[in-house]
Amino acid sequence: MNNAILVVGSVALDTVKTTAGSAQDALGGSATYFSLAARLFAPVQLVAVVGEDFPARHRALLCDRGVDCSGLKTAKGKTFRWSGRYGRDANTAETLATHLNVFKDFRPKLDDAHRRAPVVFLANIDPELQSEVLAQMQSPALVACDTMNFWIDSKPGALKELLGKVDIFFCNEDEAEKLADRPNPLQAAEVIASWGPKVVVVKKGEHGALMRIGSRFYIFPPFPLPEIKDPTGAGDTFAGGFLGYLASCGVYDDADHMKRAMAYGTVMASYTVEDFSTKSVEGLDRDRVDERFHDLADRMSIPRADELLKARKPALT
Amino acid sequence: MNNAILVVGSVALDTVKTTAGSAQDALGGSATYFSLAARLFAPVQLVAVVGEDFPARHRALLCDRGVDCSGLKTAKGKTFRWSGRYGRDANTAETLATHLNVFKDFRPKLDDAHRRAPVVFLANIDPELQSEVLAQMQSPALVACDTMNFWIDSKPGALKELLGKVDIFFCNEDEAEKLADRPNPLQAAEVIASWGPKVVVVKKGEHGALMRIGSRFYIFPPFPLPEIKDPTGAGDTFAGGFLGYLASCGVYDDADHMKRAMAYGTVMASYTVEDFSTKSVEGLDRDRVDERFHDLADRMSIPRADELLKARKPALT
Repeated sequence: MNNAILVVGSVALDTVKTTAGSAQDALGGSATYFSLAARLFAPVQLVAVVGEDFPARHRALLCDRGVDCSGLKTAKGKTFRWSGRYGRDANTAETLATHLNVFKDFRPKLDDAHRRAPVVFLANIDPELQSEVLAQMQSPALVACDTMNFWIDSKPGALKELLGKVDIFFCNEDEAEKLADRPNPLQAAEVIASWGPKVVVVKKGEHGALMRIGSRFYIFPPFPLPEIKDPTGAGDTFAGGFLGYLASCGVYDDADHMKRAMAYGTVMASYTVEDFSTKSVEGLDRDRVDERFHDLADRMSIPRADELLKARKPALT
Repeated sequence: MNNAILVVGSVALDTVKTTAGSAQDALGGSATYFSLAARLFAPVQLVAVVGEDFPARHRALLCDRGVDCSGLKTAKGKTFRWSGRYGRDANTAETLATHLNVFKDFRPKLDDAHRRAPVVFLANIDPELQSEVLAQMQSPALVACDTMNFWIDSKPGALKELLGKVDIFFCNEDEAEKLADRPNPLQAAEVIASWGPKVVVVKKGEHGALMRIGSRFYIFPPFPLPEIKDPTGAGDTFAGGFLGYLASCGVYDDADHMKRAMAYGTVMASYTVEDFSTKSVEGLDRDRVDERFHDLADRMSIPRADELLKARKPALT
């Protein structure tokens, strides 16, 4: 079974400051985070561009973990750089600087192997470019995309057109509300779903996430963490865990699988924020992911009435 | 089995303005909301004070729904009045006016029947008064309390002393962080638990709630609602559903029952905010509560792997 996931997005060098510390020119970018999460579930094909200054060790890090980097091109110039700062509210980054560099001329041309991937994730890039990439795909079974406020403001038409062609749309709560011009994520997701996506996933950062399928909402709390070191990339590893799990099953049209995908997304995001840059997620294996998946399931489960009849263990000691 | 719940707190007349409308001199107060929720699960004994202006129809509303109002005294003077406003952030009320009136001299003396209740909820009043009430109880199986920022600022010592004597502490996220002087609810709950309560429930308003038992955190998303009309009383009906469910089982020391209690709390709060004042919760019956309980359980459940083998239903149409 071909269950590869193609991801097209950014590979970047991030400089980040949070209340827990800072990182300088660290490995980042939406496609990087997504790949490092999704590779724990299924083969990942990465399509992106870096500059001549991109450290060989970063490329090696991705290759060593099984990510197909044949689509990670090196262009003349410097790698995309982003610099940002998080305050006590881990949900919102203040962007200090964005240098697109080689990313400015990014016009991905897919190889034949890439065009045949059954799952494609169009990470946060220009929606016109996302549509161009999608047009090159042969007949994907599942198309998902992400976006950001910048494109909602500057290219809402192109974004809406793209949404008519995707199955799953990932977005943050504030982005959803802005895009749909609605005061809360439920109303916003309803409007967005009317434009095309069968599944709308609204990420609420440290408050969890919700998913709309058909007209029904599913709700997921965050994994409880006593400290968030660096929220960067959490949304992308959420999508990586979500789509990675679905690709590993080869099932793309079932609500129960989507609910498990939400839990895997939650788990991947929770690991990501425990350390700076990709440090935490690059060291993970599937066993540790499954361990936290079951832990999360226990922490948010409501025991059925018949389960209460089982031998009781005292809990309040 | 005596499974009565004694609640001591406020019965008030509220004037509230939200983005969805307003209510004038409507039935309110922490003990009112708690009673109307808990009575769906177990007998409730209400201890509070009102003024001579308290409408007879409000007292009848409580009595008609089975709440024992023998402890609802009428004192010379006016009923406690609160007036507040909610903006787009439904989590925080801006208090416009507080008139304690007869509530200023509230010094509850419990009857023998009240002193024998196995479950007691000390709603948000002066912590010294909460301790006085507790001292009158015979030998309650479960003691729970709530508080608010005003007491955290003005009587932190008395509050900490009270917490050494309660089993379950309910508080809002910002209250927990302020009381414990910690930057997030998990760290705050850990500190608070070290003062005594075996169970700490942190309510995060429209972002759900979390519960600490022993050193383990359980997490609950909110029930998804497209609109919140009036958040007033949601925290009190949360506690009412929580303690009501436990009292109905007569089980006070089991984590699985506590998890179901969290879900019933979530359900009661979600009904409460769907209308102004007590309008929504006063019309509920246990069937409708259980219906939403099962709905919530489905919306937040993570199907086990073996459950996925069952016949699949297409979901993305």
